[in-house]
Amino acid sequence: MIQVLKTDQIGFCFGVKRAVSKVLKELDKGGEKIHTLGPLVHNPQVVAALAEKGVIPVDDVRGVEKGIICYRSHGIEKEEEQRIREKGLVAIDAVCPFVKKVRTHALYLKKQGYTVVIVGDEKHPEVRSVLSYLDNDGIVMQHPRPIEADKVGVVSQTTQDLEILKDVVGGLIDHAGEIRVFNTICESTFLRKKQAVDLARQVEIMLVVGGKSSSNTTKLFHMVKKVQPKSYHVETEDDVKLEWFSGTKKVGITGGTSTPDFMIERVERLVKNL
Amino acid sequence: MIQVLKTDQIGFCFGVKRAVSKVLKELDKGGEKIHTLGPLVHNPQVVAALAEKGVIPVDDVRGVEKGIICYRSHGIEKEEEQRIREKGLVAIDAVCPFVKKVRTHALYLKKQGYTVVIVGDEKHPEVRSVLSYLDNDGIVMQHPRPIEADKVGVVSQTTQDLEILKDVVGGLIDHAGEIRVFNTICESTFLRKKQAVDLARQVEIMLVVGGKSSSNTTKLFHMVKKVQPKSYHVETEDDVKLEWFSGTKKVGITGGTSTPDFMIERVERLVKNL
Repeated sequence: MIQVLKTDQIGFCFGVKRAVSKVLKELDKGGEKIHTLGPLVHNPQVVAALAEKGVIPVDDVRGVEKGIICYRSHGIEKEEEQRIREKGLVAIDAVCPFVKKVRTHALYLKKQGYTVVIVGDEKHPEVRSVLSYLDNDGIVMQHPRPIEADKVGVVSQTTQDLEILKDVVGGLIDHAGEIRVFNTICESTFLRKKQAVDLARQVEIMLVVGGKSSSNTTKLFHMVKKVQPKSYHVETEDDVKLEWFSGTKKVGITGGTSTPDFMIERVERLVKNL
Repeated sequence: MIQVLKTDQIGFCFGVKRAVSKVLKELDKGGEKIHTLGPLVHNPQVVAALAEKGVIPVDDVRGVEKGIICYRSHGIEKEEEQRIREKGLVAIDAVCPFVKKVRTHALYLKKQGYTVVIVGDEKHPEVRSVLSYLDNDGIVMQHPRPIEADKVGVVSQTTQDLEILKDVVGGLIDHAGEIRVFNTICESTFLRKKQAVDLARQVEIMLVVGGKSSSNTTKLFHMVKKVQPKSYHVETEDDVKLEWFSGTKKVGITGGTSTPDFMIERVERLVKNL
């Protein structure tokens, strides 16, 4: 039988667990219809399970006329929040507190006169949310490049790689007189990556379970792939291929912050029974 | 004839020029005997020229009972300054304003509750001076290492290498929640290094003129040596060896921040007449 080892940090993170639990509690009340602004988490199976219970993701609040609207863990854009208020919709705020910390620090830095740099992916909803609260008065980057500013304030996307944050800060030191960095990388995401890389070194095959559209799962996969070429990103047990395991004795499993426990268990069971 | 190219940034820097000029002005007044606390600059020829005019370096103020005492460009330790005040000696403050900025920023960071890190050489008088004003409540480092602190404030020795500052800051980002960096590397020292390295790439032989005990000259020499193996650190024209130049057409010359113009000129004249 194949031995399966898992990381301690696996399955939903604190912020995702909290968001899902808030929505489930609201469902229990049996009140008005619940919409989430964008998928609640970047995991199709979780979104499908919630949809079955009547939780509907919408891309834009403009189409929603009544009911409850849930801000997802990645944050919400300032304009959307205003629109929701103006429409008088009931809001559930499921934004992760660690994501809110990025916004709080970014706004503080702006108020203190710093040019704000967000180290992250400009397309990610978390970064777009922070930027919207800065009234777009911020610079998003993932590669070191100089900027024309003497006082620079830096925050990072919660799921950012530490090495990228270091590189960007290093590049800014070249030109700025003062740099103030709030390391807003989420501790548990950081730990998850570290544990995944450590585990990938000890096994023959590494499986990273999670949504294909999940940014943190994809990053996790690329990190472990560097130390263990036989690494695979699987969304469900159906993605697991028998031919990967010929002669394999030890398999490692980890998952993204939006991967539900039941999906980890399904993949684990399948591998153990190969 | 050998072509000689020089960097724009050469000879005394602003702080050294200012310190020497302050002492010369005081000499002109023809008043009491002048002592400098440590050599005024790390250049034996300059110190010897001043000694001839009666400016005497002392290691410790405890031996001086009367006269004028000059704080050199690298700064002064807090306890020494107190002793000078208690003794009622007349003081000339020739501390470089850029060096004082390091102290000011370090004290500000301490007051704001940051654990202060000085990126520099713990034996260098500039670093010792800053540390003394922090009542030794600071950490000196030149290699990245983690420290137990959530809020870290960073300043750097004015002659520090930018790459070292970046490395240390990178190492601190691993562990601290907030890092505030004042890049107190002296702009002209930075430019001097850059110009020296650029020039070293264009010539066949590079001469770095300056005191053997001068920290910034030695650093400059090691930097150019990396890109031009035929680089030599010479204190005076007597150190220049004929055999270095066989078949050479292009020689580069630069000097440390404490190297007097007359020494650059002497070396230049010698090389041109080879």
